[in-house]
Amino acid sequence: MAGNSFGQAFRITTFGESHGGAVGVVIDGVTPGLEISELEIQQDMDRRKPGQSSVTTPRQEEDKVSIMAGIFEGKATGTPLFIVLYNKDARPEAYDSIKNLYRPGHADVTYDKKYGIRDYRGSGRASGRETAARVAAGAVAKKMMKEKGVKVVAYTLEAAGYKCKTFDESVIENNVVRACDSEAAALMTKRIEELAEMGDSCGGIIECRITGVKAGLGEPVFDKLDAELAKAMLSLGAVKGIEFGKGFECVSMLGSEHNDWMDKDGFTSNNAGGILGGISTGQEIIFRIAVKPTSSISVPQKTVDKKGDETEIVTKGRHDPCICPRIVPVVEAMAYIVLADQYKRQAAMIE
Amino acid sequence: MAGNSFGQAFRITTFGESHGGAVGVVIDGVTPGLEISELEIQQDMDRRKPGQSSVTTPRQEEDKVSIMAGIFEGKATGTPLFIVLYNKDARPEAYDSIKNLYRPGHADVTYDKKYGIRDYRGSGRASGRETAARVAAGAVAKKMMKEKGVKVVAYTLEAAGYKCKTFDESVIENNVVRACDSEAAALMTKRIEELAEMGDSCGGIIECRITGVKAGLGEPVFDKLDAELAKAMLSLGAVKGIEFGKGFECVSMLGSEHNDWMDKDGFTSNNAGGILGGISTGQEIIFRIAVKPTSSISVPQKTVDKKGDETEIVTKGRHDPCICPRIVPVVEAMAYIVLADQYKRQAAMIE
Amino acid sequence: MAGNSFGQAFRITTFGESHGGAVGVVIDGVTPGLEISELEIQQDMDRRKPGQSSVTTPRQEEDKVSIMAGIFEGKATGTPLFIVLYNKDARPEAYDSIKNLYRPGHADVTYDKKYGIRDYRGSGRASGRETAARVAAGAVAKKMMKEKGVKVVAYTLEAAGYKCKTFDESVIENNVVRACDSEAAALMTKRIEELAEMGDSCGGIIECRITGVKAGLGEPVFDKLDAELAKAMLSLGAVKGIEFGKGFECVSMLGSEHNDWMDKDGFTSNNAGGILGGISTGQEIIFRIAVKPTSSISVPQKTVDKKGDETEIVTKGRHDPCICPRIVPVVEAMAYIVLADQYKRQAAMIE
Amino acid sequence: MAGNSFGQAFRITTFGESHGGAVGVVIDGVTPGLEISELEIQQDMDRRKPGQSSVTTPRQEEDKVSIMAGIFEGKATGTPLFIVLYNKDARPEAYDSIKNLYRPGHADVTYDKKYGIRDYRGSGRASGRETAARVAAGAVAKKMMKEKGVKVVAYTLEAAGYKCKTFDESVIENNVVRACDSEAAALMTKRIEELAEMGDSCGGIIECRITGVKAGLGEPVFDKLDAELAKAMLSLGAVKGIEFGKGFECVSMLGSEHNDWMDKDGFTSNNAGGILGGISTGQEIIFRIAVKPTSSISVPQKTVDKKGDETEIVTKGRHDPCICPRIVPVVEAMAYIVLADQYKRQAAMIE
Repeated sequence: MAGNSFGQAFRITTFGESHGGAVGVVIDGVTPGLEISELEIQQDMDRRKPGQSSVTTPRQEEDKVSIMAGIFEGKATGTPLFIVLYNKDARPEAYDSIKNLYRPGHADVTYDKKYGIRDYRGSGRASGRETAARVAAGAVAKKMMKEKGVKVVAYTLEAAGYKCKTFDESVIENNVVRACDSEAAALMTKRIEELAEMGDSCGGIIECRITGVKAGLGEPVFDKLDAELAKAMLSLGAVKGIEFGKGFECVSMLGSEHNDWMDKDGFTSNNAGGILGGISTGQEIIFRIAVKPTSSISVPQKTVDKKGDETEIVTKGRHDPCICPRIVPVVEAMAYIVLADQYKRQAAMIE
Repeated sequence: MAGNSFGQAFRITTFGESHGGAVGVVIDGVTPGLEISELEIQQDMDRRKPGQSSVTTPRQEEDKVSIMAGIFEGKATGTPLFIVLYNKDARPEAYDSIKNLYRPGHADVTYDKKYGIRDYRGSGRASGRETAARVAAGAVAKKMMKEKGVKVVAYTLEAAGYKCKTFDESVIENNVVRACDSEAAALMTKRIEELAEMGDSCGGIIECRITGVKAGLGEPVFDKLDAELAKAMLSLGAVKGIEFGKGFECVSMLGSEHNDWMDKDGFTSNNAGGILGGISTGQEIIFRIAVKPTSSISVPQKTVDKKGDETEIVTKGRHDPCICPRIVPVVEAMAYIVLADQYKRQAAMIE
Repeated sequence: MAGNSFGQAFRITTFGESHGGAVGVVIDGVTPGLEISELEIQQDMDRRKPGQSSVTTPRQEEDKVSIMAGIFEGKATGTPLFIVLYNKDARPEAYDSIKNLYRPGHADVTYDKKYGIRDYRGSGRASGRETAARVAAGAVAKKMMKEKGVKVVAYTLEAAGYKCKTFDESVIENNVVRACDSEAAALMTKRIEELAEMGDSCGGIIECRITGVKAGLGEPVFDKLDAELAKAMLSLGAVKGIEFGKGFECVSMLGSEHNDWMDKDGFTSNNAGGILGGISTGQEIIFRIAVKPTSSISVPQKTVDKKGDETEIVTKGRHDPCICPRIVPVVEAMAYIVLADQYKRQAAMIE
Repeated sequence: MAGNSFGQAFRITTFGESHGGAVGVVIDGVTPGLEISELEIQQDMDRRKPGQSSVTTPRQEEDKVSIMAGIFEGKATGTPLFIVLYNKDARPEAYDSIKNLYRPGHADVTYDKKYGIRDYRGSGRASGRETAARVAAGAVAKKMMKEKGVKVVAYTLEAAGYKCKTFDESVIENNVVRACDSEAAALMTKRIEELAEMGDSCGGIIECRITGVKAGLGEPVFDKLDAELAKAMLSLGAVKGIEFGKGFECVSMLGSEHNDWMDKDGFTSNNAGGILGGISTGQEIIFRIAVKPTSSISVPQKTVDKKGDETEIVTKGRHDPCICPRIVPVVEAMAYIVLADQYKRQAAMIE
C-alpha cells in the first residue's frame, strides 16, 4: 500500500531518489506492437531537464533514457517496458549542511515523521527529479494516444504576476516560460530573472487542453475522469489546486448559465470542461492547476533542526526560480498516462 | 477496472441507482472490535437526506440504514460490513418524459456514450443519491477516526453570491445552508429561496478543516494525502475544483511568503494546508472545493434527444436549488474514508 | 487489504455471515447490455443449495436471489450489479453450545487469533454459505462467457474411496454426488450415506474441464491463468490442493513424454492442461482439486475452549457428509469469474 | 491489468527478458530502517544462478545484483527499493534457428497468440531468468521476516524417480539436487546426469516448510494464506500443482481422521498444513508443488512453425535437465514475499 504505482490497465511504477544511482519506471500494459524509440522519449525528457534557460536551475543533468526491457526490434512486446535514467550530476556533499535541518516548504520534516529515516541528498524521493520517470512513461502513453488521435497541450497561463491574454499554441515552445502569449511571456521572464537574482521564487497557473478524446472515458463513481486527472496532478509536489472548465468561477454562475446546451452539432458551450458525470463528452477537456512558488530559495529563513532547536537556513543550491516551464511537460505526461489507462479500461468494460 | 471501489486498506464498494431497489456499500477493512450502531450511522444520514429545509429538494427519502453483515453483538468483526438503504420514494414514472432527452449539465449523454444503455430514472447511478452510501461508510470511518482523535468539519464558505466573513463552528449545523457565519447564512438562504422560486440554481464553495491528524500520513509519490483527497472530492458529481491551504492564491505569492517556517513549538504558519510532499505535517489540514450550480433547473433549456433532434426541455422534478448544504456531510464522509485508509496504510508501512 | 474482492476487470466483492441478515455480492464490470435475470441466476443457486439429497445437509435454505441494482429493463447497465440473498433458516441459538469452543477442522480458533472477535453462529464468514454469493456472481460471468462460446463443467471424479472410470457428461446432474460415472456414483452415494449414519464425513476430487476458451488469456508473469485459477480454487475453504493437466503425475514423466507436440491441426496431446507459460493454448483447460472431508462431524472429538481448557466436543448440526456435490457449482462459478476477468483484461491489453 | 506485480502492502513489480538489457524488480513497501546489503541478496542469488553443478545448465550468468534506489547508508528508506541484474551472458544469435518455431512445452505459441509479437531470444519474458528478480525481492522479504522469527525451508522431496525417505535439513544445501535425504540425493543426481546425457529431462516435487509464523495471517475470503501461496507458486512457469498439509491424500481420509485436535499445549496433529479457514494457525505451514520436466530437451520433437507448417525441432541450448534445485530458492523467495505482505496486511487490519 505504499504509493509508487499509478494506473490500472496502463500502470506505471516509479522509483529513484535525486542523488541515488538512478530514477526510472516500469510500465505495465503497453500495447504490444507499439513502435517506440529512446529518441522519441528523449525529446520529451529534454523539455523537462534542468539547465534549459535563464529561468530554470543551472543544474546539468542530461536525463538520458535507456529502454532496458519490454521492447524487441523497435516494438513493444506487451511485457513490462523498463526505462532507466542514471543520475550523473549528483553532488550529495552539497547537502551535508542541511542533513539535520528542515527546509521550509520542503518535505524534510514529513519524510522524517513518516519513515523515521530520510535520504537528505537533494530531497531524495521528494525531489522534482522523480518526475523525470513520469515524463519517460508519458512519452510512451503519448505515442499510444497519438494513434487514437488524442493531443495534450499544457502551458503557463499565469506566472510572476502576469497573465496570458491570448492563446497562441505556436509560441509555447518558443519562450522559456512556456506561456501561450508572447507578450506575457516576456514580462514573466523578466520578472522571474529578477526574482532569481533576489534569491526568491514565484508560482503560476498551468492550463491543459486535451483534444481528440472520444466520448465515454472515465469510470464512475470513484474513478471519474476528472477525479483521476485531479489525483494525477495533485500527486505533483508543487501543485496546490486544480479546476475543470469554469472551475471556481462556477461559484458565481447560475445553473441556467453554467449548464452546457446541445444542438444538432453537439454542445454549444463548454463550461464543464469536457467532462459530465466523470465521463468525457468528446469535447476539449480543459483544466488548470495552481503551482506554488518553488520552496528552494536563498533568502534567509527560520526553521528548526531534527532536535527541534531553532536556527536560520540559507539554501545554497541550484534551483528553479519558477518551476512552471519544467512542470508543463510533466502535466502533459500525467494526462497522457491517465488517458492511456482510461482507453484500456473502457475496452475492458465493453468487452 | 470499473470504478466503484475506493481505498485500499479501508475499502468501500458502493452500488445502487436512484430509483432502483436500493443503494448501499460494502466496507472491507473495518477494524475488528469497533463498536458501531445503525443509530450512529443514521445521524449522519439525516444530515444528507432530502427534504430537510427550504433550500433542499422536497423529495422525501428517509434514508434508513440497515447493517446486514460484518457486525456481531454491536461490534465489527473484521469481515465486510454491509449497509443497505432501500429506495422508498422512487417515482420512476416521473422520468418518462426525459427518457430520450439529454438534460443539460447531467450525465445522460455521457452514460449513453459510455455504456450504450442508460437507466434514465432519476439519473440512475449518476444521481446524488449515490452519495448516501458514501455517507454511511463515512460514519463508520468517522467512528474509527474518533478513536485516533481526528475530527473533520466541513461547511459552506460561499454560496449564492455571499461569502462567510467569520468562522464560527457552532453555527454550522444551526442554519439551513450549513455556513460558518450566521449573517452570511441568512443572506445565502434568502437568495437561494429566490432562485428556487425562479426555477434556477447556484453553486458555492465548501471548506473542510481536519484536526487531530498525526504527522506522517500519505503515500508518496502517487498516493499523496492531497492527491487522495483530491480524487475523493472530484469523484463527487458536482465538484469542479479543489485547492489546499492558500490554494490558487499561492500564484501571487513569493516563495519567501509562501514557505511555512518552524520554531520550537512547530510551524508558525500554514499556507501549505497541513500537507508537505504529500504527507501530513500534524497541523490542521484545510482545503476548499468548488461546487457547481445544480444542473436540474426548471427554466427552459435547449438540448437534443437521443436521435440528435433539437428540442426544449423543462425539468419538472424535486430538486435542490443549491446542493452545498447536502454535500457538506458527503465531503466529511469522504475525508474520513481517506484518513481511515491512510492510517491503516501507514500501519502497514512501518510493520 | 482485507480480502473480500476477487478479480480486476470483472470484480466481485462478497459479504455476509451464515446466520447474519444476508449474504451477497457486488459485481463491478458487468458488460453493459448483457441480458440477465434472477431466474437464470436462481438455477445455479439451486445446484448449490442445501437440502438437495441424501448426501447433503438437511438444512433448508432456499437461497432466493434478488438483483437490486445494476439492471434496467432486463439488461445490465455497466454499473455495479448487486445481488442479495437474505438468510432465512438462521438458527443462531443452535450454536450457543459451541460459542467458546474451537471445533476441530474449523476456523474458529484462527478467526479468534486474527480478529480478536468471532461471530460463532454457523461459522460466520467462514461458513460454506459464503460461497452462495460466489455462485450468484458466477451465474452472471457464465452468461457473459456463453456469448464467447466458453463452457465450464465440473464434477466429482473421486469420493468416499471410489473413483470414476468413465466420463459421461450427461450423468453428472443426474446423480446426487455429481459424479461423471453412474456406476461410481452409486457406490459413492451408498458409502456417503453410511458415513452420514456414522456421523463421519469424507472428501473427494473434483475435476473441471473448460472448453471454448480462446488462446491468449492469462497475464504473465504473476497473474498467469493457472495462477489465477489456483488462487480462486484454494480460496474455497475445503480445498487443499490443485493440479493442472497431468499434475503431480508429471513428476514421473520425462520431458520427452510430457511436452505436447503440435502438427498442422494443432496440439497432438494435452499434458499441460491447456495452459502454457500461464496463457491459454485454445485447448481444453483441465484441472483437479482435492476436497477435504467435511470438518463438521458428530463423532466425539477432543479440543479446547477459548481459555485453553481441554474438553470434548460433539457437533450437533445439520451438515454435509461429503461436500463435493455442492462444491461442484462453486468451482464452475469461480472458473467463470476468472475467465470473465481474463477476457476483459486481454481486451485492455491489446486496445 | 497486465500482471507483473505481486502483493499489496509488500508489492513487487518485475521486468526483463532473458536476453534483453537487464532483469530487475521494484519493491514497494519495504519497512523503513531495514538494514539490507547487496551482499545478503547476492547470497540468495547464487543459489538460483545457472552453472552451479552437473545437474544445472552450464550457462554462465553471474546474476550480480545492484541496489540503485530506496536505500541510504545501508538502510531501507521506505521508498521503492530498486534492484537490477544486467544480462551478461546473452547470446541472442543462439536463438535465430528457433525464431519462427514453436518449441514443445514452451510458451512460444501462446505469447504469439496473446501479444501478436514475441521476443524469441531465450524465451524472452517466459524464461526462467525472470525468477532472478523474484529471488532478489525474496531476499529483502526474508530479512524482514527474519526479524519476525519466520523461517522458510524448501527442498527437493522427489525427483527423477526417487523420493526422500528422511528429512535432514542440514543436507539440503550440501547436495546438488537440494534434496533432504543424502541417499536419495545421490540416486537423483546419478539419474539426472544420465538424462542430461540423453538430452532428456525430468521433474520432481518440492516441499516447503515455514516455521515461526504467528497465528492470524491470511485475509478471508479470497486472499486466504493458502490461496495467496498457491497463486505465488503456480505463477512459476514449471509448476503444475500444489497441495497443503495432507493434500490430495485427504481424499482417502475420514473427517474423524483429518481434523486436527487441540489440547492445552496446542494442536496435536497438523493434517491441515498450518492453515485453517485460510488463516495461519501458528503451526508449521507445509506444502508441496509439482514441477514438470524441463521443456528444453535436445531429443528431436515434432512441432510447427509460425505459418503452421510441420517440422522437427532439436533444441540446442544450455538447459537444466531437472530444474528442481534451482527452483528451491525461488519457492522460498515467493513464500517470504507472501508472508511479508500478509504481516503488513494484518497490521493494517487491526490498526
